Amino acid sequence: MKTPTAAILVIGNEILSGRTQDANIAFIATRLAARGIKLCEVRIVRDEEEAIIAAVKALSLTYDCIFSTGGIGPTHDDITAECMAKAFDAAIEMSESARKTLADYCAARNVPLNEGRLRMARVPKGAVLIANEVSAAPGFKIANVYVMAGVPKIMQAMFLAIEDGLPQGQPVLSVTVSCSLREGDIADALEKIQNRHPETEIGSYPHMPGLSLVVRGVNAEKVEAARAEIEAMVKKYGQNHN
Amino acid sequence: MKTPTAAILVIGNEILSGRTQDANIAFIATRLAARGIKLCEVRIVRDEEEAIIAAVKALSLTYDCIFSTGGIGPTHDDITAECMAKAFDAAIEMSESARKTLADYCAARNVPLNEGRLRMARVPKGAVLIANEVSAAPGFKIANVYVMAGVPKIMQAMFLAIEDGLPQGQPVLSVTVSCSLREGDIADALEKIQNRHPETEIGSYPHMPGLSLVVRGVNAEKVEAARAEIEAMVKKYGQNHN
Repeated sequence: MKTPTAAILVIGNEILSGRTQDANIAFIATRLAARGIKLCEVRIVRDEEEAIIAAVKALSLTYDCIFSTGGIGPTHDDITAECMAKAFDAAIEMSESARKTLADYCAARNVPLNEGRLRMARVPKGAVLIANEVSAAPGFKIANVYVMAGVPKIMQAMFLAIEDGLPQGQPVLSVTVSCSLREGDIADALEKIQNRHPETEIGSYPHMPGLSLVVRGVNAEKVEAARAEIEAMVKKYGQNHN
Repeated sequence: MKTPTAAILVIGNEILSGRTQDANIAFIATRLAARGIKLCEVRIVRDEEEAIIAAVKALSLTYDCIFSTGGIGPTHDDITAECMAKAFDAAIEMSESARKTLADYCAARNVPLNEGRLRMARVPKGAVLIANEVSAAPGFKIANVYVMAGVPKIMQAMFLAIEDGLPQGQPVLSVTVSCSLREGDIADALEKIQNRHPETEIGSYPHMPGLSLVVRGVNAEKVEAARAEIEAMVKKYGQNHN
């Protein structure tokens, strides 16, 4: 089974100014791993047309699915929909379905469906809407790009709405061996274990104090075999060095 | 004064698997903004040679300074130094100075300076070392790329060691007007304020509940003028709509 690949494109000056800590990457990354989709790359770009278009074009050509977050609200700094249309040479147009959804939402809350809100119903021609159960204004899919909101609660609702339609790979299993050894003490031994278990991916993550040794792979037996060797190694080094 | 530009390259499968939430981007972004360096882009790539080399080459050509984090430890999955050497056609070699620093550190703690630890003294030929006051193993600068550790505490120590040598732009001021209005209610009015204040950058960030309207710019008077208009607009809409 071919492993589907993915990238995330985060659009927003607020992340690049340090004002806001991104909360969407970890959510999407975790869901993709569980589905066996390999997240290969993330890019974070500013709310600038040229940067958004260049990034989405490059990612769209390279990976199977792209997930963008941010820039689809009603304000002047929300330019993602226009940029996606330009990136894929599509016209931008009012979606009658999105307009209706927004009109119903506004009527129920007694807020005006003004020009700003109507901007959120404009999507590239041919795009497929992504439902937003939180605040009505939809995301959309164009080509292989899922265009979602930046507000985490809305992004998560949109992701759950598209999740069943995503490609399916073999879910990646992940087990962690935690220890208090120093990374430098076990580096050579760990590399030998990695070489004996090429179908797993072994990572070493120090977090001061402490060390997490993580085995990832799609085959449960192979993951377990590598984990058992790491655990034995950790025991041996713990006796020798503590 | 020309505004220096920057990018961050985060290297590490642990971020892309969702296992670890990145903590370095916000730190670097905040420090760069305070120094007047414009952070234009972030890329997160896997611990894979081809991906690292392609990303660092592209970023190095596009921006004034690049900050990489991750992949310079002692284990087999730490391949950043080798990749940086290849990206810039440099040989990789043992730095005598780095080796001495590590030897002293290990001797003082009675841990062996083994093969794994010695890997951390290997840097591209011509690279300039970046001090690591936390755990001795240095980062380095090659071309316009500052190569730093991924562990936040170590990365922060390295960043503070290089900060004074970074280019200096006009620091960007940022003021926030918080309110409980809906973004859709004020989108049109906010756009008009942005158009009247083209030398500031006005962002609108909903966080459910609540809305932060942020004015950024290098000129304090111009930032204040835009902020005052936003505050007046918020008062007016608050009266009309609440």
